[in-house]
Amino acid sequence: MFEGLYTPRLLLDADRLERNAARMRARCHDLGVTLRPHLKTAKSADVARVAADGAQGPITVSTLAEAEYFAAAGWPDILYSTAIAPAKLGRAAQIQRDHGARILFVIDDRDTAVAIGAEAAALGARFGLLIEVDCGEHRSGVEPASDALLAIADAIRAASPRLELMGVMTHAGHSYAFDDPAPIRALAETERLAAVASAELLRSHDHKCPIVSVGSTPTALFAEHLAGVSEVRAGIYLFHDLAQLSRGICSEDDLAISVLATVIGHQRGGPSLILDAGALALSKDVGANRFMPDAGYGRVCDAATLEPLGELAVTTVHQEHGNVPVPDASWFARLPIGSLVRILPNHACLTCAAYPSYDVLRAGTIVDQWPRTGGW
Amino acid sequence: MFEGLYTPRLLLDADRLERNAARMRARCHDLGVTLRPHLKTAKSADVARVAADGAQGPITVSTLAEAEYFAAAGWPDILYSTAIAPAKLGRAAQIQRDHGARILFVIDDRDTAVAIGAEAAALGARFGLLIEVDCGEHRSGVEPASDALLAIADAIRAASPRLELMGVMTHAGHSYAFDDPAPIRALAETERLAAVASAELLRSHDHKCPIVSVGSTPTALFAEHLAGVSEVRAGIYLFHDLAQLSRGICSEDDLAISVLATVIGHQRGGPSLILDAGALALSKDVGANRFMPDAGYGRVCDAATLEPLGELAVTTVHQEHGNVPVPDASWFARLPIGSLVRILPNHACLTCAAYPSYDVLRAGTIVDQWPRTGGW
Repeated sequence: MFEGLYTPRLLLDADRLERNAARMRARCHDLGVTLRPHLKTAKSADVARVAADGAQGPITVSTLAEAEYFAAAGWPDILYSTAIAPAKLGRAAQIQRDHGARILFVIDDRDTAVAIGAEAAALGARFGLLIEVDCGEHRSGVEPASDALLAIADAIRAASPRLELMGVMTHAGHSYAFDDPAPIRALAETERLAAVASAELLRSHDHKCPIVSVGSTPTALFAEHLAGVSEVRAGIYLFHDLAQLSRGICSEDDLAISVLATVIGHQRGGPSLILDAGALALSKDVGANRFMPDAGYGRVCDAATLEPLGELAVTTVHQEHGNVPVPDASWFARLPIGSLVRILPNHACLTCAAYPSYDVLRAGTIVDQWPRTGGW
Repeated sequence: MFEGLYTPRLLLDADRLERNAARMRARCHDLGVTLRPHLKTAKSADVARVAADGAQGPITVSTLAEAEYFAAAGWPDILYSTAIAPAKLGRAAQIQRDHGARILFVIDDRDTAVAIGAEAAALGARFGLLIEVDCGEHRSGVEPASDALLAIADAIRAASPRLELMGVMTHAGHSYAFDDPAPIRALAETERLAAVASAELLRSHDHKCPIVSVGSTPTALFAEHLAGVSEVRAGIYLFHDLAQLSRGICSEDDLAISVLATVIGHQRGGPSLILDAGALALSKDVGANRFMPDAGYGRVCDAATLEPLGELAVTTVHQEHGNVPVPDASWFARLPIGSLVRILPNHACLTCAAYPSYDVLRAGTIVDQWPRTGGW
């Protein structure tokens, strides 16, 4: 059904995407929180529309390039979830001005609050800020409900009337370290408490804190409840991938992204198939292998049905070559040179980043092409 | 000197690039072979011009997108080094027609020769072919000087007068498995013999074999001699990277690529610096760590001088965050939030692929911007 298509190319199953999106919307509705989808994975206005069922609600991004792209496309409420460097605020202010969007910026440092205040005055701009707290991943953020948190809030208030503290955010990125719902559920509660306790401390010191933002796909799906939380950020749930499947976060039928590739060689000595999808087409992420040691750089599936082809996986990648060991030479007749296969990627965020667009599938047929943004 | 620049961004030191290019040109001149630079790393017409000292000589590419880009920019002689799938020949023929370029295609399969003959007839096109032989990497290619090699040559002759066998090629990709010149020198001889013996077998059976193509940067630099070889393909020598440095292929002064990044956070618990260069800005390649276990995802250097900052390296990457452990909190004063650093990448081919252009440095100052191509 994909004969004659140039490969490698990125396929997005819109039926699965819609199901994944609807499930998370229902989940957040049940939890009583706003869903602020993280679009660093999708980088696509078309996908963002599916995520919010046609609305242009609150979203999350990871780069100012994404903020600019979504603001230009009409999204009015954008959380830029990577800590802002003050030197980037000129461009950020321009995006807000040009497109009438509001970007929420994340900080975790007192001096940076002062610097942002100075930039706001110099630029004649207003910036809404969230303070990041560290719920245990130890990537960024201050201790929850700490003096450091309060000091940042006070610094924001003192720095400039152009700054507005909008709340707190945290991210349980360490929820990806498990393949068992019990510890993920416990982490979801840790994540919730970190945010809620921080919000309460701020409010008790006369700071406003309308936004209490948490999120990761695993904790969003497994949290017992999210009392006190206002919104959830999650992104990979839209597509899922082998990394999510390996952790029990999704089922095979949820995997919405695949790479269409061509068999370009038979290595009889191996024996192995050589595909035209290598390190650039798949990325070198191997995160799924922690809990799925046979995932390699991606599982190899039938191009038409997406059924796994035995245990075949891309086990070695060069820049443009993917090597797929096969149990015996009978696979060469089954998959002659020129055959198409589909590869389920290890980590969709990184795989998708190599492509300028999605070929969009409905009932297994390409019906549309959706552009993606990229870069910084 | 880079203050106010938006990060992450890709810097290319043109002084180092020119030195690297001149060294390989002199080396190939001494070896008596044509240099056919592999531009899968650079993907830039500006870099290609430096590689050939201003000429538009023979080049190597890894995708038809690159072939199209260089053909459109005037390069007439392009070796497309990834095995061709017959379904891609329509586009390939179009590139040849539109731009008057000649693309050399690589095959290692008899049936594919027949299929390419049929495509050539259907398209009214002519295709020049190289047969790939496997000198030990076991990625692709047939046994050197084998019956399989002869069978492909005979199939090319029988398939269509529109196909022209132009020679043989091989690639000692396994030369990257060593950090010692002795085994690399031995592999260079294995690579040479594989190609030369194959060419001799073809010629003894009345096949023409004008091109005898070998190459990888390590074998090109360490070969004792290349008698019987007509041309060398190599690419990473233009930029070098930590993977090359770790194998003793280059010196620190040869590293021409770096990523300019901003410190966006201080994790006091670590302690570590958080940079705005993560998995997308650096890639997830960790190949340098085999022989340089502290390379992480890249070494962190002073932005102005490119001097290493102690032993600092990016040890963990998230999509847009790079985590750099520091020995103690004194580094926070040395590199406050907002500071710039430069990162020497692990593997330049993959790092560069994330960027649409190079900022070109002369004597440490940005003097130009050179676009890159990408995709497939």
